[in-house]
Amino acid sequence: MAVNLSPPEHLAPVAGVELATIAAGIRYRNRPDLLLIRLAEGSRVAAVFTRNAFCAAPVTLARQHLRHGPQVRGLLINAGNANAGTGAAGLQAAQRSCELAADALGVAAHCVLPFSTGVIGAQLPVAAFERGMPALASGLAADRWHDAARCIMTTDTVAKGFSRQLELSGRRITLTGIAKGAGMIRPDMATMLAFITTDAPVEPGALQRALEQAVDDSFNAITVDGDTSTNDACVLAATGQAGGAELVAGDEEYLLFCDALKALCQSLAQACVRDAEGATRFITVKISGARDRDEARKVAYTIAESPLVKTAAFAGDPNWGRILAAVGRSGIEALDLSDVDLFLDDVCLLRGGEPDPDYREEAGARVARQAEFCIDVRLGRGQAETRVWTCDYSYDYVKINAEYRS
Amino acid sequence: MAVNLSPPEHLAPVAGVELATIAAGIRYRNRPDLLLIRLAEGSRVAAVFTRNAFCAAPVTLARQHLRHGPQVRGLLINAGNANAGTGAAGLQAAQRSCELAADALGVAAHCVLPFSTGVIGAQLPVAAFERGMPALASGLAADRWHDAARCIMTTDTVAKGFSRQLELSGRRITLTGIAKGAGMIRPDMATMLAFITTDAPVEPGALQRALEQAVDDSFNAITVDGDTSTNDACVLAATGQAGGAELVAGDEEYLLFCDALKALCQSLAQACVRDAEGATRFITVKISGARDRDEARKVAYTIAESPLVKTAAFAGDPNWGRILAAVGRSGIEALDLSDVDLFLDDVCLLRGGEPDPDYREEAGARVARQAEFCIDVRLGRGQAETRVWTCDYSYDYVKINAEYRS
Repeated sequence: MAVNLSPPEHLAPVAGVELATIAAGIRYRNRPDLLLIRLAEGSRVAAVFTRNAFCAAPVTLARQHLRHGPQVRGLLINAGNANAGTGAAGLQAAQRSCELAADALGVAAHCVLPFSTGVIGAQLPVAAFERGMPALASGLAADRWHDAARCIMTTDTVAKGFSRQLELSGRRITLTGIAKGAGMIRPDMATMLAFITTDAPVEPGALQRALEQAVDDSFNAITVDGDTSTNDACVLAATGQAGGAELVAGDEEYLLFCDALKALCQSLAQACVRDAEGATRFITVKISGARDRDEARKVAYTIAESPLVKTAAFAGDPNWGRILAAVGRSGIEALDLSDVDLFLDDVCLLRGGEPDPDYREEAGARVARQAEFCIDVRLGRGQAETRVWTCDYSYDYVKINAEYRS
Repeated sequence: MAVNLSPPEHLAPVAGVELATIAAGIRYRNRPDLLLIRLAEGSRVAAVFTRNAFCAAPVTLARQHLRHGPQVRGLLINAGNANAGTGAAGLQAAQRSCELAADALGVAAHCVLPFSTGVIGAQLPVAAFERGMPALASGLAADRWHDAARCIMTTDTVAKGFSRQLELSGRRITLTGIAKGAGMIRPDMATMLAFITTDAPVEPGALQRALEQAVDDSFNAITVDGDTSTNDACVLAATGQAGGAELVAGDEEYLLFCDALKALCQSLAQACVRDAEGATRFITVKISGARDRDEARKVAYTIAESPLVKTAAFAGDPNWGRILAAVGRSGIEALDLSDVDLFLDDVCLLRGGEPDPDYREEAGARVARQAEFCIDVRLGRGQAETRVWTCDYSYDYVKINAEYRS
């Protein structure tokens, strides 16, 4: 079902990163559902989390552990149970799972960050972690990225992972990342999680800024249904094992690293949209000519989250009335629709807010029936622009979200 | 398909108001699609329009005509063509239709307000208005409210109209109103239009305030899919023919009139939600314990417009995780979920942000499988409350909005 998305091909090992998966029986039977990632000593870790006030126990605990400083040595991720809406008992279970992993790795509990994805409101079965931990810790190896990408899937239909490499002053730098889920497509089993590692040496503050900027243009520029999860998290770990001088903010090499990181994050984020529940089309919403980026975002999200635009996209219908109505209600100040042009890919539908005299419905329909196309709105009031990626609403979206229940 | 909605029973005539409908052939064949409402001399008219910057030609023109002062004598409404996205030619067509009606009524063109609903982007066929106007004007009568309610329907499945009467100092006051459509359920054929008349004498400023307050708690408290139409309008005309002293702001009698008007508007607005495309459940979202009304509204709309909450409602699934996640992302300041209680009707699901120990899924499912129920969220941080009405998302919502095309 995923739109133009294949399982990852080559996922390059990253020096200083080892991974292991096991079938711990947390929820699923006979499939890996528990992932441990060991980071070499001296690794730096940056992270961003869901902004939903209803956040899961592992998010709360991971935030606490990060406050201890940059001593993260392990990431522990389970699929099948979100450990959300589970109260004090859920927080204790997350804490205990970190202790188990920390013992196995020979580090302190606060050096492990926990992540969970799966059903909301069910207590995390700590016994499954206890039983599985010895085998998990003994299986750690550098070449387990494909297993890792598959292990964290819940309702994903395709594993998601990408690698990028770049040369910085003769050093070969590797970035490899995996992700799962998208938005709150299936909120009981959703959660967008992404784990990216690199062997580049990066100054901690610069690492966090690099991640925040990359996320802003990738994971925070996608939408499926406007819902945000209780467990969303994106982690970037830099082991520094490529050697050489630390990358610091402002450096040319740092900027090259940031570009590569952003490209990797965009690939992962777009993969989540391509694999969104019921998606049959992958749509880029491009807004240009805005006064500032906030304004461009507001318009882009109003279009990208409009159920009417999304159902029209499902039908392959170049329905400019719905797009223009979304622009019109996006709430930007003193909007003059007679300045607005609308294209689907390179086909002009509206000029100055009215149907282009040369536009023929067949030309628009040809674009809208493609598996991928761009809704390109030019506001004509400034220089700012942005892009947001989304998908259509199909029967399957309703079916999956109405029928799914833990 | 509409949820607990029957066609109007008794629609009381209003002294000073006459109506006529004809099958003008604007779009449909063999069904009335053009409505004229004549208001007696001395009538006062208040109106509110869509806040969408992409507004239709009749909205632009009606706003212009209202600036001429309180001399409105006719309302001209067509179904089948929205006259939106039609540029200068559309504005001319709307102007011409007003002139035709004004000639037939023997008044100036600016005394007629035009309203259109139907497909976007098609030019209004003025010839149909020319052909139909003589028969329309000669058919005016006080008892044509049922015909009028049916005439303005587009994709509505049930005609919508209500009457209310009240005694004010021995005067019997009548309010009768009709409405069609809801939100942008089918944007090509959507538009929420409501026309309410009364024989009460009301001071013009007080009339506009009464309408604005009533709309705020009715038409502006419903949502189907979050989209707003290019043509939405709600008009309140007061003929004054019940006689007696003018109602003025602050009067006890004025407040009684406002209450009756609000109740009438709520009946009409709720009827629009009950008849929303694909709706199988009618849901009241009640938020209490908010710091202020804006905050309550923000939470209410985030829940009411969440595709995940709406698909769960379609399934009859008491999915508290989706509701709590919507509360969590609604963007209100310093929200503490450990203060939040959640009820479905009188069944408590969450207390202090966690599952109530006594809650059993069967009890929640019993409520969520009803045709109507209330999602009752208590924020525990203040005294403000609000109610919003919405419906579920079904397969038919996607089907209708994907397959429909003019």
